[in-house]
Amino acid sequence: MNDELKISNAVIKRLPRYRRYLNELRRKGVSKISSREFSELIGYTASQIRQDFNNFGGFGQQGYGYNVDDLYSEISNILGLDREYKMVIVGAGNLGQAIANHNYYHRSGFVVDSLFDVNPKIIGLKINDINVRDYEQMSEYIGNHKVDIGIICTTKEVAQEVADKMVKGGIRGIWNFAPVDLCVPQWVSVENVQLSEGLHSLAYYINQNADSLEENEK
Amino acid sequence: MNDELKISNAVIKRLPRYRRYLNELRRKGVSKISSREFSELIGYTASQIRQDFNNFGGFGQQGYGYNVDDLYSEISNILGLDREYKMVIVGAGNLGQAIANHNYYHRSGFVVDSLFDVNPKIIGLKINDINVRDYEQMSEYIGNHKVDIGIICTTKEVAQEVADKMVKGGIRGIWNFAPVDLCVPQWVSVENVQLSEGLHSLAYYINQNADSLEENEK
Repeated sequence: MNDELKISNAVIKRLPRYRRYLNELRRKGVSKISSREFSELIGYTASQIRQDFNNFGGFGQQGYGYNVDDLYSEISNILGLDREYKMVIVGAGNLGQAIANHNYYHRSGFVVDSLFDVNPKIIGLKINDINVRDYEQMSEYIGNHKVDIGIICTTKEVAQEVADKMVKGGIRGIWNFAPVDLCVPQWVSVENVQLSEGLHSLAYYINQNADSLEENEK
Repeated sequence: MNDELKISNAVIKRLPRYRRYLNELRRKGVSKISSREFSELIGYTASQIRQDFNNFGGFGQQGYGYNVDDLYSEISNILGLDREYKMVIVGAGNLGQAIANHNYYHRSGFVVDSLFDVNPKIIGLKINDINVRDYEQMSEYIGNHKVDIGIICTTKEVAQEVADKMVKGGIRGIWNFAPVDLCVPQWVSVENVQLSEGLHSLAYYINQNADSLEENEK
């Protein structure tokens, strides 16, 4: 899979969004869509969309548009969503539990295998039928169970240590919710979730809207 | 504030990230940085960075680079982070509680005033010293308390109804964690948190890295 492809990070970041909108179109029974219609839906320019899709072979036919099902399947394949990923969560606080409780991930092939924590009061419990295990056993566990993705829901103070153990255990992808940049070897991928950045953009738009409301009142 | 500025959404989306890196530089005592150095740090091209900063007046001096403190303050001002925002969370499940427990938001001027829920077992409790109130009272409460931002941590089934009530109560910004696109009037801004998109990018990179490891072994 993906053998000959070298797609820029910016395009890769847009693919999941394309896929989400295509999935909505499929649910609504839409079978084809032009780059112009897609542009209005998703908010990228039509030329951006055509350029992005040209990166991996086009999919579209001049004057016909894109076949929604084909495009959805192809993007899913490119992203590697045609297989299952085994995940563990470290840190079974509110955030770790919220992710464990989110059945969407399971349905879409991202299966939470275990949670790990240091708190003896919650080790041994089950959350959404997922075992909370002792963090001390994590390194050994992920090595033995071929875990693909480690999810870090700890404080920023211990996140790097957790990441180091995950890497030692053979994990290739880290989904990091701790507000810190992790150092990992180049064969390990990290996706940082920077929740507050969304909040900061929101602050901007609130002020912009307030300004234009005031403008209108003048 | 921002009266004459009309900056593209793409630039606005990058500002919080610039700000986060500038804050790290400040903490490390770095006082100036060139667009080239900044490029290596943040992963955008130097020309992209210069172009972005030119949007709102430059800040930089040829041959000197950017003053880190000034740039940080200016971006904070543009984003509107020089004031406080009052927020409420609807849905006091794991995710709502995780956000309420996250003191970072409070420290940076985004103050969670209340949680709202329909579950009588948790109404009346306090989470991180924040009251959990009856969802029935939300519309009235946010009108009386000048709430700026509503955070939706409900299921997708009720998210639109919650958004409608928030808008009626005068809320101008919605931070939406429910996996659904909301319909709101144009003077209301919505930031959708699409957590699974990060996971999908991660899947791509895991497979890419696996491919290149195999390449090397051949």
